[in-house]
Amino acid sequence: MTEQVRFQLPQEELPTHWYNIAADLPPMAPAINAKTGIPITPEDMMRTTAPALVEQEFSKEREIAIPEEVRQIYAQWRPTPMFRARRLERELNTPARIYYKYEGDAPTGSFKPNSSVPQVFYNKQAGRSMVVADTGAGQWGAAIAFAASLFDMKAKVFQVRVSAEQKPHRKTMMETFGSECIPSPSTETAPGRATLAEFPDHPGSLAVAKSEALQIVFDDPDAGYTRGSAANHVCLHQTVIGQEAKRQLELLGDYPDIVIGCAGGGSNLAGLAFPFLGEKLAGGRDVQLLAVEPSACPTLTRGRIAYDHSDSGGMTPLQRMHTLGNGFVPPPVHAGGLRAHSIAPLISWVVELGYMQAVAESQKRAFEAGVLFLRAEGVLAAPEATHAIRAAVDEAVRCRETGEEKTILFGLTGHGNFDLGAYQRFAAGTLPDDSVSEESLAVGLASIPETPGVQS
Amino acid sequence: MTEQVRFQLPQEELPTHWYNIAADLPPMAPAINAKTGIPITPEDMMRTTAPALVEQEFSKEREIAIPEEVRQIYAQWRPTPMFRARRLERELNTPARIYYKYEGDAPTGSFKPNSSVPQVFYNKQAGRSMVVADTGAGQWGAAIAFAASLFDMKAKVFQVRVSAEQKPHRKTMMETFGSECIPSPSTETAPGRATLAEFPDHPGSLAVAKSEALQIVFDDPDAGYTRGSAANHVCLHQTVIGQEAKRQLELLGDYPDIVIGCAGGGSNLAGLAFPFLGEKLAGGRDVQLLAVEPSACPTLTRGRIAYDHSDSGGMTPLQRMHTLGNGFVPPPVHAGGLRAHSIAPLISWVVELGYMQAVAESQKRAFEAGVLFLRAEGVLAAPEATHAIRAAVDEAVRCRETGEEKTILFGLTGHGNFDLGAYQRFAAGTLPDDSVSEESLAVGLASIPETPGVQS
Repeated sequence: MTEQVRFQLPQEELPTHWYNIAADLPPMAPAINAKTGIPITPEDMMRTTAPALVEQEFSKEREIAIPEEVRQIYAQWRPTPMFRARRLERELNTPARIYYKYEGDAPTGSFKPNSSVPQVFYNKQAGRSMVVADTGAGQWGAAIAFAASLFDMKAKVFQVRVSAEQKPHRKTMMETFGSECIPSPSTETAPGRATLAEFPDHPGSLAVAKSEALQIVFDDPDAGYTRGSAANHVCLHQTVIGQEAKRQLELLGDYPDIVIGCAGGGSNLAGLAFPFLGEKLAGGRDVQLLAVEPSACPTLTRGRIAYDHSDSGGMTPLQRMHTLGNGFVPPPVHAGGLRAHSIAPLISWVVELGYMQAVAESQKRAFEAGVLFLRAEGVLAAPEATHAIRAAVDEAVRCRETGEEKTILFGLTGHGNFDLGAYQRFAAGTLPDDSVSEESLAVGLASIPETPGVQS
Repeated sequence: MTEQVRFQLPQEELPTHWYNIAADLPPMAPAINAKTGIPITPEDMMRTTAPALVEQEFSKEREIAIPEEVRQIYAQWRPTPMFRARRLERELNTPARIYYKYEGDAPTGSFKPNSSVPQVFYNKQAGRSMVVADTGAGQWGAAIAFAASLFDMKAKVFQVRVSAEQKPHRKTMMETFGSECIPSPSTETAPGRATLAEFPDHPGSLAVAKSEALQIVFDDPDAGYTRGSAANHVCLHQTVIGQEAKRQLELLGDYPDIVIGCAGGGSNLAGLAFPFLGEKLAGGRDVQLLAVEPSACPTLTRGRIAYDHSDSGGMTPLQRMHTLGNGFVPPPVHAGGLRAHSIAPLISWVVELGYMQAVAESQKRAFEAGVLFLRAEGVLAAPEATHAIRAAVDEAVRCRETGEEKTILFGLTGHGNFDLGAYQRFAAGTLPDDSVSEESLAVGLASIPETPGVQS
């Protein structure tokens, strides 16, 4: 008798709503205008962002309907499969049941299209003809290019120059979708030109790319800005992941004791974990939530809860969240998607309220878990996701020691096909040092702005 | 109302048997020993190959049970989804219905594990401790490494040196699975050393890699040889693809008028098409079958039906099949998996009997279709698979002109994540010339051996 290892849901089970956890939490501190100290209003955000997204950003509604046009596109790859890692369980000789929710079969290979599709849709609905994005390694840029292609929208993506040059494949993917991918800093915008005037060989950074993207949007009313992570509405869109996982476990008569996700900007973790937390907040079962961040960028474990910018240029509003300081520069670890000095305010709030714990893992221990997982399960995980695998393996080993038959669920956010160079360096023992010095942490924390009149 | 675009099957619909079309066709000409002119016997093949695979190679049984251990591994990604390309249909404004069977979500990203898993399983069952393979771009090598990892078998893969150096990612993948990947020609075997002695800078070829792999197997009784395509038993294993597709369409109340697959060694095409042909041979519905090969390697459209070796070293038996001659050297097109001078004898036989047609397509027209498909459907296809897309698009356009509401099914054999360099060159207009000269065809055809006492 064939044991079931892959759990699918029929199309009818595709969620009809996104789950907005803000409805179930105490109110968060508002985002504030850095210059005036006054809370940001929806009107402030409309300059850059489609109205429906602004509304979601501020919404307290528990359920927000997914537009039919978005569900139609989701239906190509959602509901995504959940797997039980039976071979890994045997390898670890654990009594725990290990499940993973797999987003790597999505177009462009990660969970990012869950939000790029609605963001592009709402921008088109608002009458804009172009979307603009900034991207590092290119996961968000590729997801925006995909969505723009489907909605016949123009897309302009500013990609950190060094990433575009070192890993040209995602740039090629964006261009093949018909999008423009511009290595940043570029001569196309004032912030780009200013950076190049000062540093002609500037390798680029997310901060500069974001400034360039925002400049396009400020200059062109037809262009709308898109966000790959951290914002409330991005966390919201990703809740399709956790809703499906909950239903998949329910059909198995199971429920997680612990839900594990890797933590960078925070949206994939929010998407997986919040529907379970919502259940608990509604009086349902208790569940442990675990954020796994790279020790190279220990935002939740070493950061401070304070008002800070999410970019390093100070163009974005101040938000209250865990932050290492917008001047913190993490070592160049391969888990590019986790190199964020601050995290989604919603994740930060949930951690502060005690509903979620965090651990930091070294790059080496993460890759070790990734290789173990590949050999047991045959699935090549993105370096970001290997952090969640690491924590899941550790929990399963603890269960072996205690005899507990825990149910472990983790998020496998994307495939690692574009990251084989990193696996090669891991095998060769040539991964760069990812330790972060106390000095560099101190420099980062000192860059957190003082916010007059605001209580951090 | 969300239109359905992805069609899944529950695990219960995973095929229990492989379909052996040899049971329903007139007998094929036997493979023969090149030296003696005597037909190859199962015993001859046992030297290199696990007994169960030899039995399948010669079998006339219509249905061959899939071992439970193999089904258990298939269950991780099979049944694979079938998609309806509704956005492509709209883009083409065609009354045709276009379906594709997608194998790109399988481990290692292509249809190859459908056969690597049983081949490794049967080798383990036969008491061997190692499997050996030769691979060009690395799809087969990666699939063998995956399967070997799951069955705790050693694997040694000889990869064409120039491929291993130009595209190191699949080599890294094999090694990360724990397999050995040796650029060929190597100093590890006598044929490798002989080649290097004569040509120290030899870039490698599938022929040399195959000679090296076979040498290992001849020298070590614990090692079993594996085949990535062409052999009867490989075509057999791939029939899970077509059986599932047939069932998926049946549940939709549909049936293909035409089934399209790309043609290299022939196994993916066999796997998709033979279950439909079997239905027709059993008195069921008629169906057109179309093989799409690269015009750079026009085996079915310009080759001769003759006895030839499937390698260029003459180590393999002579088989009667379409061939361009074992000395034919195709231009270095990106669809590496289609660069075979000869094709599976079963495919050749089906073409000769009139059950299947063939067309040749240029690399440029194939990539054009691949880009069109990416922009409409969001799926990046391997260059091999773009040949099938090309023919499907052409057929859909013909339907627009004639008004026919045909049902078109094509095989999308793998993702193109490792082939973005080729897409980039296509976009830049720098794809190498893939035209094949009459002279090079003549040289190839002249290399077909004379087979005394055998009627070609």
